[in-house]
Parts: sequence; structure tokens; C-alpha cells
Amino acid sequence: MVTGTISLDEAQALVRAVATELSEAHASSTERCALADSLGRILAAGYRSDGPWPSTDRSAMDGFAVATGGAGPRASEEFPVVGRSLAGQPFVGALEPGNAVRIMTGGVVPEGADTVVRVEDTSGFDDTSGSEERVSITADVEAGANIRPQGSEVEEGAVLLNPGDLVGPAEIGALAVLGQAEVEVVRRPVVRIVSTGDEVVDLTETPKPHQVRDSNSWSVQALAERSGATGERLGIANDVEEELEQMFSRGLEADVLVTIGGVSKGTHDLVHSTLEKLGVQTVFHGIAMKPGKPTYFGRRAREGRRDCLVFGLPGNPQSTYATFQMLVVEALSILNGAAPRAELQAHAAGVPWRSNWREQVVPARLRAQEDGRLVVELARLKPSGDPFGLLDGTVFARVPGEAAPEETKVLRVVGGEGPR
Amino acid sequence: MVTGTISLDEAQALVRAVATELSEAHASSTERCALADSLGRILAAGYRSDGPWPSTDRSAMDGFAVATGGAGPRASEEFPVVGRSLAGQPFVGALEPGNAVRIMTGGVVPEGADTVVRVEDTSGFDDTSGSEERVSITADVEAGANIRPQGSEVEEGAVLLNPGDLVGPAEIGALAVLGQAEVEVVRRPVVRIVSTGDEVVDLTETPKPHQVRDSNSWSVQALAERSGATGERLGIANDVEEELEQMFSRGLEADVLVTIGGVSKGTHDLVHSTLEKLGVQTVFHGIAMKPGKPTYFGRRAREGRRDCLVFGLPGNPQSTYATFQMLVVEALSILNGAAPRAELQAHAAGVPWRSNWREQVVPARLRAQEDGRLVVELARLKPSGDPFGLLDGTVFARVPGEAAPEETKVLRVVGGEGPR
Repeated sequence: MVTGTISLDEAQALVRAVATELSEAHASSTERCALADSLGRILAAGYRSDGPWPSTDRSAMDGFAVATGGAGPRASEEFPVVGRSLAGQPFVGALEPGNAVRIMTGGVVPEGADTVVRVEDTSGFDDTSGSEERVSITADVEAGANIRPQGSEVEEGAVLLNPGDLVGPAEIGALAVLGQAEVEVVRRPVVRIVSTGDEVVDLTETPKPHQVRDSNSWSVQALAERSGATGERLGIANDVEEELEQMFSRGLEADVLVTIGGVSKGTHDLVHSTLEKLGVQTVFHGIAMKPGKPTYFGRRAREGRRDCLVFGLPGNPQSTYATFQMLVVEALSILNGAAPRAELQAHAAGVPWRSNWREQVVPARLRAQEDGRLVVELARLKPSGDPFGLLDGTVFARVPGEAAPEETKVLRVVGGEGPR
Repeated sequence: MVTGTISLDEAQALVRAVATELSEAHASSTERCALADSLGRILAAGYRSDGPWPSTDRSAMDGFAVATGGAGPRASEEFPVVGRSLAGQPFVGALEPGNAVRIMTGGVVPEGADTVVRVEDTSGFDDTSGSEERVSITADVEAGANIRPQGSEVEEGAVLLNPGDLVGPAEIGALAVLGQAEVEVVRRPVVRIVSTGDEVVDLTETPKPHQVRDSNSWSVQALAERSGATGERLGIANDVEEELEQMFSRGLEADVLVTIGGVSKGTHDLVHSTLEKLGVQTVFHGIAMKPGKPTYFGRRAREGRRDCLVFGLPGNPQSTYATFQMLVVEALSILNGAAPRAELQAHAAGVPWRSNWREQVVPARLRAQEDGRLVVELARLKPSGDPFGLLDGTVFARVPGEAAPEETKVLRVVGGEGPR
């Protein structure tokens, strides 16, 4: 257990270290899913080319494949056209020297042919009959031109996709080329979410003046989904030890338990003591960041299984959101076996901000300027209890604490969906 | 119908103009979905604050709410503590002048109290008894400090979310605060996808040397999903008029029909003639871009319904993918009523590229440098038939045709998932 208040960088390093340790002991299990369902998943297996690509010599152009014996056709040469090689209907047999076949892009280059001449460099196609008797070449063409030779793009057995790769549309296309109707992916980590607090009511209720609707468990569920996990909302626990204990116990069966609220050090903050009672070992409690100071991180040992990671996030909406983005996302990418999320660097623009003793994590927007500079526009600072303050940003900018102005011209930026 | 070959910018403008015209005549219908399912959808309605926020005066800190009569408490002043205001258990009644209550962050500031003093600026909490008899102030505090007044963050009726907004985790949180268990969203446009070509076989088959597995319909389906649409793969049509006609007819019932392959001007390219026969009106056929030159765009009128948009994309994997990103995505964002996708500007880095007469659209990766410059790394150019060439990029860089070197230092960048 780390005592005292640590920096956000230190907190992130601890989360990564624990998640890595657990993953090395017990990697996430894998499962097969249909190709169309694999979008956004993380590959659990590597995939290699099942043959050379192209699988045979192919034409890169519409035109004529000619057999010159290797010298390459010259302007004004003429060839008899003895057949056609269309994409779906190859020319059958070998091409005799001095002959040509009409060939379309992607068509198999017949045995014996050594060069493809683009239709633009010939007397052209006869579109009336659909087949020519002869073709004249109108430009000198290098031997071997316009042919994609067998295996020139991808060798048989070449590694195309690796475990840990995120499946996007391009990966789906590649997996289809490889004939993979099903794909081996990492099982999504399960994040169970418990909202705590006597003042928190379900969204279907009309809150009394001192109450608030539970919104954090919904945004955390969505953030978990965006991070490649499954979010399960267990409900709202009142600040009563038995209620917390019962819900936390269920949460501790998942890969990750996220509790919301009740971690600051007040009278009614039973979250920490209940977690300890349930055998959760504290890694840290308190980060020098704003918002998010009272954030808690721990782990719970389990017989024969990977430990459960436990995040106690503060309950102000901006605090919950920011600490999830900064800490829980780091853990989930490691449990998923995926590449770690990178931080960006961007020029600070716009609204002034304070640089007090704690690092601040501020909702912001990225913008790519016409001159190619990446600019981050910090949202107007709002109280961390304002549940709508997050609508002003798609990323978070990290403003260092106690920083000189020149240290804050370029800021670290995390999360979100990139510049728009 | 536009004759001749147009630029990519002109093609995009035509797609936007037609999609806008159709949307203005018949907007997409809307539907209600459960809050948890609304992630990634486009709002069809605006949402306003259903009350002031905060709903009452709230404490921004753990500490003591004091009734000073308006002057603000001074260092060494002492107040009797007459009760507590916790987040879920407000102090009942009004606070008499000269009295204090213990108050926790988010707690309702009692009537009569004018200032909250942070616990750090007092003699502190008595954690043994859980309630103090008296509290001493240890620093001068401004009147009104540490109170979030009712309505100071959001006024009742303030517009928080607008039609066309993309629902992300922050929007889900905001909708939960507003008590929206169901959300009004735009019905996803349906994109029907037909692969064409005698050489194309299903991914479950082992292709003969002259054949290729259908991969484009899979990547297009994934791209459609990423663009907020539903992709429906209708299958593979051979280059036979009856087969094309039958599948295209089914496709023309959707919002968008995407055909893949068979649009270049060869003997067996029946796609265009079949579309015309089915009443599709050509908007353009041919773009000065590489890859993607033979791309076709048209529209089909329908009785009492919005026209179907028809995209005939070329069949080389890189061509299909690039033309979808450049053109179909533009149409889908308009049908969705969403904000148009913006282009970025980034510094070109890395691999050299050719600048021939046509604009080139090159798979690339974005990287934010430590100095805050956004850099785009172009992938090594690969033949557009290489189905794995797209794995080298997450975005497309637009390299202008016939450009002087200084015109290509900063490139336009489109699509993908932002810098990583």
C-alpha cells in the first residue's frame, strides 16, 4: 500500500503495474465470434497469409497480355488476339510467342505472356464485337510491365494480424480474404458498477431537492463499453454497511469493480472500510489531481482466479468520468491485451486556467489547425459537481500543477475520440 | 448528370448536395431506444434542463455552513454546531444567526446559512463522536464562499443537447441526470451491399487461382456500421444481367445501395447498364482520384419515399475502402442529420509519394508530436488490389495531383479514428 498522496503519473504506473502482474498470472480467456461481430474487438490470435498474394500473376490494367519472348513490345508491333482473360474467366492454356489476349484488371496473366500493355497504349478494344482479331501497340512498353507477379505483395505465411490488434473495418476485410468466418478474440473484461450514496436515486425517480439522479453508473457503463469491456450496473447502495457489503460482494466476482461516491474522508464514507472488510487490499487512496483527489485503487485476491481490480471513484460527475478515463481505461487495455492508449501533445488555446498545487484534468476539445498544429481548447472550468460540464469536451487536457506558463504551452491530452 | 471526369472535391460536393436535397424532402424517421443502447446514436430531439442546477444551494466542500448575517466568518470566531447536513440527509429547518452545521460536499446549504467554511479552515471534525459541539474558524472567509448557489450552473429550461448530437458517454450521463430512460434517436440508414464479379467467391470457399474471396462487402458493412448506419450484405452477383438486376432491385429498397466491382469501362462491366435499366439516374461516373477513378454515383426515384442513393464502387479492396470513406460516409452523416465529418490538416512525414495528374488517397497514420504538431505518416504505396495494404493506415491522406513540393507539406486527412 502506497501511503500519502501520489501524483497522477504515479497512480497510473501503479494501476498498470498491478494490471500487468495480474494479466501475466492469468491472461484473459478467449472466445470465437462471427466475423461481422468482431468489429471493435481485440484479436486473441495472429493471422497469416494462407497463400501468396496475388495467388497468380495478375494484370494491373485493362489491356492486352502479350508473349514477346521477353524483349517487351515496341510501338507499331502487331499481335493476333487469340482469346481473353477476364477476372472470372481465365484464358485456358499457354500463350504462344507472338500472340496476345485481351486481359482485364485482376485477370490471370496466361502462361507464356510476359507483359501487359494498357489499352491506352494499343489500337484499343473492339466494343462492338467484344473481341478483336489483332491489336497494334502504340507505345514502347517495358517487358514485365503492368503485371502483379504471384506473391509480390504478400508471401505465403506472412504475418498479417497479431494478437492484441484492434479489429477495425480494414482488419475485417483482411480476415475475410483469409476466409475467417469466425475470429478468435479476447473475452471482454466485465466491469461491475455500484453507485453509492443516500442522496442518489434511480433515473426513473423525481429527485427531492436534496437528491440527485444516478447518472454516473450510466456514463461509466458507456465508458467501459468504449474501452472494450462490458459494463454491468448493479444498482444504487445506500450509505449502510450491509447494503454496500452485499453489492460489493457481487461486484468482486467480476474482472473489475467500480464503486462511485463515498471515498472522501467524511463521516458517512463507508466505502473504503467496507472494501477492506471484504478483503480488498489497498494499493493507493488519494491522488494529487483535480478533480479526483480521493480516488481509491485496490485488489482482491481470489482462489485460482485472477484478482479483482477495485476502483473507488469519487461521485462528482466530472470526477467519476475523469478518473475512469485516467485510470480504469489503462487497466482495461492491459486486461484486453491491447496496445496501451497513447497520450497526445497539443498546443493549449483559448480559455485561461488556474495552475494550483494539484495537476488539473480539464475537459477539452482537439482541433487540427490549417498549419498542421494540434490545438487543445480547454472548456470553461465548471464545478466538478456539474453533470453537464463534460458535454463541453471530448478529451481531457492535463494541466500540470505549480507550472510556469512556458510549461503549459503544450499539454498532454488523453482519451476521447480524436480531433473533429 | 455530370459528364467527364470530376475532381474528388467536386464529387464530394455533388454527394452532399444530393443527400441534403433528399433529406430536406424526407428526413430520416426517428425511433426511441433505451438509454444504454443509445451510445453512438444520433439524437433526433433536443433535451433541456428539467430544473435549475444545482437544484438548491449546495456545499462545494466538506466543512461547516455558518449563519453570520452576511459579513462572512473571521479567523478565531466560534460557532455552536447545531446539526448536520449530509448529502442524503439535509438539516431540517432554518439556521439561526450565529450558528453552524457540519456540512458535506453536495449537502444542501440550510436556509439562513450564508457561507461554507472548509474543514481545513476550522478546528476540524470530531471523528470520534461524529458530531461537534462547537467549531472555531481559523482563517478569514469571504461571505458566500464554497456555496454552489441554486441554478448557478444550469438554468431551468437551458438547452443541453441538440438534435444531431452524437451520443457519447458524457451525453449518456447528461440524459440520465434528466431522467431519460429512453432516448429519441434517428433511425439508422440502411446500406445494402452487393459484391459483383465472376471471380468473387464467398469467404467460406477456397478460391481457385483466378478467384478471390469476397472481402469488400465485409469491410463495407463494418464501415457502414462505423458511420452510424446498418450494413446488409445481399451477397455476390455474377456478371450476368439477370443476377445483377435481381440483387440491385432488392438493394434499391434501402436508403443506400453500394455495389462493389464492375464499374470500369470493360466488356463485362454490366453494373452501370443494369442500374440505368432499373431507373437509376447517373449523377457522376468517374473521379480524378487514385484509387477510385471509375466510381459511380446515382439516385433512384421512389414513389412517396426518399430516393435511394446508389454508389458503384470499384472492386479493388483499397479502391472500395477509400471511395466509401470519401463519398458514402459524407452521405450517411447527412442522412443521419449529424454534423459533417471534418477534414484535418497534418504535416506529411515519412515515405515519399508520387504526385501524378490525379489526386491520390493514401492510407496513413496520424501521430501527435511532442511539439504539438500533427504529423501524418503515409503508408508505402501498394497496388490497389492488395487487400492487406489498408492495414498500414487508420486514416487517408489526400495528396494533391500535379502539386509542387511546397503544396504537399501539409496534407488533408480524412476518416479513421484519430491519432493514437
